[in-house]
Amino acid sequence: MKGIKIGLLGCGTVGTGVAKLLLTNQAEIRARLGADLILKYVADVDHDTDRGIVFEKGVFVRDAAQVVNDPEIDIIIEMIGGQDVAKDMILQALKNGKAVVTANKALLAEQGHILFKAAIESKMDLAFEASVGGCMPVIKTVRESLAGNRISAMTGILNGTCNYILSKITDDGSSFETALSEAQAKGFAEADPTLDVEGHDAAHKLAILTALAFGTQIDFKDVYVEGISKITPLDIQFARQFGYRVKLLAISKCDGKTIEARVHPTMIPEDNLLSNVNGSLNAVTITGDAVGDMLLYGYGAGMMPTASAVLSDTIDIARNLLSDSCGRVPLAAFQADQIVQIPVAPISAITTHFYLRFAALDRPGVLSAIAGVLGDHGISIQSVHQKGRKVNGSVPIVILTHLAGEADVQKALAEIAALEAISGQPTLIRIEDKNSDVSH
Amino acid sequence: MKGIKIGLLGCGTVGTGVAKLLLTNQAEIRARLGADLILKYVADVDHDTDRGIVFEKGVFVRDAAQVVNDPEIDIIIEMIGGQDVAKDMILQALKNGKAVVTANKALLAEQGHILFKAAIESKMDLAFEASVGGCMPVIKTVRESLAGNRISAMTGILNGTCNYILSKITDDGSSFETALSEAQAKGFAEADPTLDVEGHDAAHKLAILTALAFGTQIDFKDVYVEGISKITPLDIQFARQFGYRVKLLAISKCDGKTIEARVHPTMIPEDNLLSNVNGSLNAVTITGDAVGDMLLYGYGAGMMPTASAVLSDTIDIARNLLSDSCGRVPLAAFQADQIVQIPVAPISAITTHFYLRFAALDRPGVLSAIAGVLGDHGISIQSVHQKGRKVNGSVPIVILTHLAGEADVQKALAEIAALEAISGQPTLIRIEDKNSDVSH
Repeated sequence: MKGIKIGLLGCGTVGTGVAKLLLTNQAEIRARLGADLILKYVADVDHDTDRGIVFEKGVFVRDAAQVVNDPEIDIIIEMIGGQDVAKDMILQALKNGKAVVTANKALLAEQGHILFKAAIESKMDLAFEASVGGCMPVIKTVRESLAGNRISAMTGILNGTCNYILSKITDDGSSFETALSEAQAKGFAEADPTLDVEGHDAAHKLAILTALAFGTQIDFKDVYVEGISKITPLDIQFARQFGYRVKLLAISKCDGKTIEARVHPTMIPEDNLLSNVNGSLNAVTITGDAVGDMLLYGYGAGMMPTASAVLSDTIDIARNLLSDSCGRVPLAAFQADQIVQIPVAPISAITTHFYLRFAALDRPGVLSAIAGVLGDHGISIQSVHQKGRKVNGSVPIVILTHLAGEADVQKALAEIAALEAISGQPTLIRIEDKNSDVSH
Repeated sequence: MKGIKIGLLGCGTVGTGVAKLLLTNQAEIRARLGADLILKYVADVDHDTDRGIVFEKGVFVRDAAQVVNDPEIDIIIEMIGGQDVAKDMILQALKNGKAVVTANKALLAEQGHILFKAAIESKMDLAFEASVGGCMPVIKTVRESLAGNRISAMTGILNGTCNYILSKITDDGSSFETALSEAQAKGFAEADPTLDVEGHDAAHKLAILTALAFGTQIDFKDVYVEGISKITPLDIQFARQFGYRVKLLAISKCDGKTIEARVHPTMIPEDNLLSNVNGSLNAVTITGDAVGDMLLYGYGAGMMPTASAVLSDTIDIARNLLSDSCGRVPLAAFQADQIVQIPVAPISAITTHFYLRFAALDRPGVLSAIAGVLGDHGISIQSVHQKGRKVNGSVPIVILTHLAGEADVQKALAEIAALEAISGQPTLIRIEDKNSDVSH
């Protein structure tokens, strides 16, 4: 029986899951692969935490560099996280002729081109299914299962923390702060939740997917990012009245000439499957010219679901090593010399439906003033809702627009905010509603 | 630029889709694959139908055997359908050293072992993603993305015709016959709908999936099959009152010792994602020890979605040919010498929740008689619903059971049917409800 030797760097939550899964399902993996995956080294500086695993003597070490430089190791699994040491280790491993599996979305989104270049030069595989959507096979689907399609759009719930919080606000009417505390207490949010709730984590994932789907390079800074920390129960309640749910969506579209890549709270119709993705779950809809819409759904994070994706990558690479076919599927889905630069449009260039909420003094003429400004900017109103309930002496006026340009809407909002009868900043939430597009 | 030469056998609906997609997305495919997929031959006896494709001279031929025996052809795409000619052509192609792509689920489910043996002997790939779930990458997910998991269950809506009909009955209250006629008029059902509505098509797909997921061989005759032709609007209406939807589910479970493989109308909670899969769409939930539950959703049939899956297989095989790695992933997900025989339990051995409906004379003591028989057979009642509405002189009595053995329930039903106060045959619909399992 042939054996493929694995070096695992980093034994935190996901690293521990990977080690456990490799050891528990060894027989199952061997029966599928026709070879053994041998966990030769697990490197971590922390040898005190009880991980519930008994490693054989000599397996659990402290020094990642030792593992990366061991000539016997075939595949390095990088679970260190962060962008400095992790990058160095990956580059060194590739240079040493080892294949690499990683789940490091921040590193891939921000410095992926450096890793890809190194992998191509070393003719070694670099796999990263676990970087997007946990156990959902979204990278494999985009790279392989949709290889005959021209992909035009992807819409995903890619951050479980945000989805958990928004589900909580929706179900319980809690404030963002209360829902966040609860998510933290239940382990669905980090002590410092910024990366998640401000949308950056979803944006990292979107950047990775966008590059693969459209065959382009993405500068991460071009992805528009807006988090959920300003979402109020009031807006979610209004959304429900209009038949919508509020989700943090990662949206990417390509018409061949420009790309839209944006992460922001979004209203979607309640009968959209994504509306029914609750709690910490993830899902992504992919639209292709042949498949129409398809959807993947599953746990986007967590020890074992993420470990499953890491192991699937490891087995994939092991198959390549056993059949001497590294590079069989190009890293970036498209051949390296076929990657094109497609410009990412700024958020101001998008056209969509908008939900706008204003806090207005309850006096005659206010609505007509607001409508007038919107009209001046060519924004067509779909419906107006003036709800009686006073909040701090003003009433909420909600307007749903027909398709409108973001730039026009932003200009109009600035003018409306300056009206004497309007207090505070207007609220804007973008709507994705295909049915509404058609009816317009 | 290298070229892989394709011979397409059969140019019906899906065959036409494959040819169109290959030609339309040629540049996209080349950019991904790094080689050309050249459609050298399309074979069909019908040269009269206008397929909206202009083939180059010499491409469109009549004789499939000529294509299969052409030494230049690398990959044969079998879209002939049926089990006789298709099987002969696939076997001849493999014997001639060509890889094969097929969507022929009936052939695979009933005679797959013959094809698999031939493919293994010839060391050639045989791919069949399009045989189950159209464009959903369910075969690839089971064989590759979940390779590190022990898969324990799959639950799928795998027949679009049945799902369309059940959605119609649910939404409009139509009878089965009316919904079927409408499905036929809209092209969602064949003129002879037996294979679909009696569950055989879903069972073929389930047999294929079951073998791959659990690493076993399945005798298709062991799959329990029950169609939707006896489903009434009344039962669907009751289901809704209890918070359920009725779907034709293909269910497969394995505890390592025995397998359940069954297709039948099933009640599932309305907040289950599968409940929201409507019209002709397909979806499948897969449960693994690491991933928990994951779900794939998409178009399960139709010209272009199926063509997408065929092309994805073709590109996969082309990658293997280009990197000389045929057989990289074992045909049956597990290595041929690791396939084990796991017995399929008969339907009488399953344990689940049941919905039972009786037509009873509206007189005292009937309910107690029914309850008595159920009790005699150790069947615990969760709730009883006696609805006032008279149908043909009798009232419907509906009983939901706690977990109960199918054999016990069948015996009890036979006894109850023989009671003087009961008219006609009782209705039995199985319920899949994890929440209900827990609460018991």
